[in-house]
Amino acid sequence: MKSDIDRLMQERGFDAVVIMGQAMENPALLYMTSRAHISNGVVIKQHGKPPVLLCNPMEREEGAKSGLETMTYNDFDLYRLVDELGSGYEATLRMYANIFERFGIKGTVGFYGLGDPGRSFVMLSQLNEMLPDITITGETETSIFDLAYATKDGDELAAIKSVAERANIVMAEVVDFLKRHGVADNRLVKADGEPLTVGGVKRFIQERLMAIGLEEGDPSIFAIGRDAGIPHSRGEESDHLELGKSIIFDLFPRERGGGYFHDMTRTFCLGYAPPEVNRLYDEVIAAFEAVVAALMAGQPCKKYHEMVCDYFEARGYPTIKSNPGTTDGYVHSLGHGIGLQIHSTPRLSSISKDIFEPGQVFTVEPGLYFPEKGYGVRIEDSFYIDQDGKFHSLSTFSKELVLVVGKK
Amino acid sequence: MKSDIDRLMQERGFDAVVIMGQAMENPALLYMTSRAHISNGVVIKQHGKPPVLLCNPMEREEGAKSGLETMTYNDFDLYRLVDELGSGYEATLRMYANIFERFGIKGTVGFYGLGDPGRSFVMLSQLNEMLPDITITGETETSIFDLAYATKDGDELAAIKSVAERANIVMAEVVDFLKRHGVADNRLVKADGEPLTVGGVKRFIQERLMAIGLEEGDPSIFAIGRDAGIPHSRGEESDHLELGKSIIFDLFPRERGGGYFHDMTRTFCLGYAPPEVNRLYDEVIAAFEAVVAALMAGQPCKKYHEMVCDYFEARGYPTIKSNPGTTDGYVHSLGHGIGLQIHSTPRLSSISKDIFEPGQVFTVEPGLYFPEKGYGVRIEDSFYIDQDGKFHSLSTFSKELVLVVGKK
Repeated sequence: MKSDIDRLMQERGFDAVVIMGQAMENPALLYMTSRAHISNGVVIKQHGKPPVLLCNPMEREEGAKSGLETMTYNDFDLYRLVDELGSGYEATLRMYANIFERFGIKGTVGFYGLGDPGRSFVMLSQLNEMLPDITITGETETSIFDLAYATKDGDELAAIKSVAERANIVMAEVVDFLKRHGVADNRLVKADGEPLTVGGVKRFIQERLMAIGLEEGDPSIFAIGRDAGIPHSRGEESDHLELGKSIIFDLFPRERGGGYFHDMTRTFCLGYAPPEVNRLYDEVIAAFEAVVAALMAGQPCKKYHEMVCDYFEARGYPTIKSNPGTTDGYVHSLGHGIGLQIHSTPRLSSISKDIFEPGQVFTVEPGLYFPEKGYGVRIEDSFYIDQDGKFHSLSTFSKELVLVVGKK
Repeated sequence: MKSDIDRLMQERGFDAVVIMGQAMENPALLYMTSRAHISNGVVIKQHGKPPVLLCNPMEREEGAKSGLETMTYNDFDLYRLVDELGSGYEATLRMYANIFERFGIKGTVGFYGLGDPGRSFVMLSQLNEMLPDITITGETETSIFDLAYATKDGDELAAIKSVAERANIVMAEVVDFLKRHGVADNRLVKADGEPLTVGGVKRFIQERLMAIGLEEGDPSIFAIGRDAGIPHSRGEESDHLELGKSIIFDLFPRERGGGYFHDMTRTFCLGYAPPEVNRLYDEVIAAFEAVVAALMAGQPCKKYHEMVCDYFEARGYPTIKSNPGTTDGYVHSLGHGIGLQIHSTPRLSSISKDIFEPGQVFTVEPGLYFPEKGYGVRIEDSFYIDQDGKFHSLSTFSKELVLVVGKK
């Protein structure tokens, strides 16, 4: 959590860190500014000192809502430099030099946030050369922010729990919406007799999320048949809701305006499930339950991913363990942390070095996929680990495969 | 436009460009993939050849909807390398080496897109050293993409026109919503007698945008009184709608799911306008109309920004021309292009090198701000330039300062 950052900086030898860029979809900046509504900003965090936010003077009031000491780019002469040098880029370089000088920053400085990769490369190379007392660097593996994100403080956990509660309500509303439809020609139909489409379901999802203060980051997944066999296929807008096909509904909304996420997936068949989907569903539920029964603080996260690979392989399914590039069988890792990003630490994957500990919030999501056969199954709950090391699911919605439809 | 990219690459000496990163809020990747619904991707564009998209194999179907030749990270061994090297970063470096080798790319390669700045710095430095035949670089000033974005093709212009049409409808709905309220104690009240709040107006704006297929990127600005005096203040949720205060309503929605923007601002006073706001409004309208009357293809964009600075200075207002850091008077540049970003090329600013030409879509938005006096005024329309060099406003909603309220 945030209070770990000084310790993490010390461990990795950073004298200061700079978090920069546009605010939208910039988890490090949102995290440090407690989601202040600024367009862009620069946070300067020296080891052992409180962070300072720099923002556009037009946004100084919004910046101050971060609770951080707030200064503006003006305080470091940006606009005068832009005019003098005729270049926003040259002025930005000089502004950073001014910042480091004013704060008396020397030594190793890590950069984080969001930016154009080529521009970052050129700018940080140049800044590194310009400033003899400073060594600029970045992190390419699990960063101090990844580590801080992994465990949530009370406010963060409360935010995620609130999103989870609302997401469970929306999941129930969507199931109810499906059940309310009639059936004709082996598919769901609306009151006017026209087929309900995946696009129609998606609009209903978006409306219900908005009504309850949530939003989609990336679009929700509502994929039927062959598309359900491709884990990240969003689903075809024009598809009809045919009975007996597997539907993967992966609902991962966040607080409106770019906040904390919750992530859950259910697999449904409308009316009935064909035997092969039933069988697959039972396998996935069994894998899910085996993982949940084994979850324990202090254990390496990768162990559970491997448990699922071994479980599915023993039953004859291809997995990414034996064939890293497979698109049939078990084709992704078991789970991931959630926070201000949908995919965060801890990672439940083959190369993860993460250990389960109190305060973490993460998903468990085994699945089996056979796109060429026209189906796929995934089950996903989000869990948090309390201060006693106990695991709790945040995804309380029931796990029934078959939805009875067409009953008025 | 997109068809300019080969010429621009040639002019700037790029043998290839790489566009990478998460898709959300990544205009270069959204632009090249025609807004395909992938989580992340890499587009390889060699000079004189069609671009190729690489994406996660789980997202191959969504990737293919870009219309580009689509390959997956598997085709360049990413997942096998992750397993072999135990590091996503090392595997990514090797994947890029594989990509350059397979496509036979040599020479100067520009990187674009979105990423963590420190990671980009370290990764591109290392890649640059690893690959003797390749010089990696980036652009720090107006890039080839900025130049391509500036002019719109027919599909892009149609998308922006459609957003503009819908945004004008929502603007009218919001004005109607305000007018429908009663008045008590010098402020708008709801049917239950409770004061309407800025938060209530913002929820109405979001609902109407959603209903018409639009969304907010950053939150809309609906700021009253002192907040209207700070151009980018979003407005306080708890503020009441007092009569006689200036309200700045800056509505800049985009197509749902991260598409093309439209941008317009109106300033309102409910019930009546005090003489000082009236005077300021007349000044801003006069500046706006002077600019619109003078707009001409072939002219430098910066000329119009300077025209407004001179106009306001002649009338005794502080401006950023005489005082680059001022927060009173005219405190921002005159306008900006719109596209997949809310702030794009051409720029109507003091350091802009852009020239008006057919196909451009941009804003004109003079304003005057006096936060300590408790008011501010801005007027903004978006314009496009047709193939004959004629300028057309896309922001047809009327420009009345005073809204009559409390009439049933």
